[in-house]
Amino acid sequence: METVASRNLKFDANGLIPAIVQDAESNQVLMMAYMNEESLRLTLQTKQAHFWSRSRDELWHKGGTSGNIQKVIDIRVDCDADTILILVQPAGPACHTGQQSCFYRNMGQAS
Amino acid sequence: METVASRNLKFDANGLIPAIVQDAESNQVLMMAYMNEESLRLTLQTKQAHFWSRSRDELWHKGGTSGNIQKVIDIRVDCDADTILILVQPAGPACHTGQQSCFYRNMGQAS
Repeated sequence: METVASRNLKFDANGLIPAIVQDAESNQVLMMAYMNEESLRLTLQTKQAHFWSRSRDELWHKGGTSGNIQKVIDIRVDCDADTILILVQPAGPACHTGQQSCFYRNMGQAS
Repeated sequence: METVASRNLKFDANGLIPAIVQDAESNQVLMMAYMNEESLRLTLQTKQAHFWSRSRDELWHKGGTSGNIQKVIDIRVDCDADTILILVQPAGPACHTGQQSCFYRNMGQAS
């Protein structure tokens, strides 16, 4: 598989890049969050997902409080290098509601 | 599954919401793009994925030119209602490079 260096990622005007998190085993999409350069560096260094919390405006070690850390198995980069896909092995639910995935609801009109 | 009405989705300051596209059968994550209210309405109406192209600044019927349309099977909404996950049956590759998924590269440092 072709590789992309982190310096070639395109962060947006706020210094963030969207990161989709997918369970490496079940392939369930668990959540989407944003990374800045520091959280990406920590993710690569520790192999545990780190994000930038836009609501709290601070670095966010996923599972740092709840224990539901996400062990990083692989990081994929899209064709524009402006979105990443993180394959993880989660220690517990991804969602603060206790659901395995944050995408636990659907749109009424689509079904 | 609990449902969310489209009027309760949270579009960002530019009127957009990120939409992750996943193959409903293989569970492969294919791409991420953005929708505005009009593209979401057309997606619901036609059951074919429509987006807003930020680079071309125009409505984008996925596959309208290439023929690689994405038939919409379900639309999921995350806990914050600010990201959607679209499960599709794709008629062909999602990526303009001809790859099945836009996430065909990985980060060297993560492996």
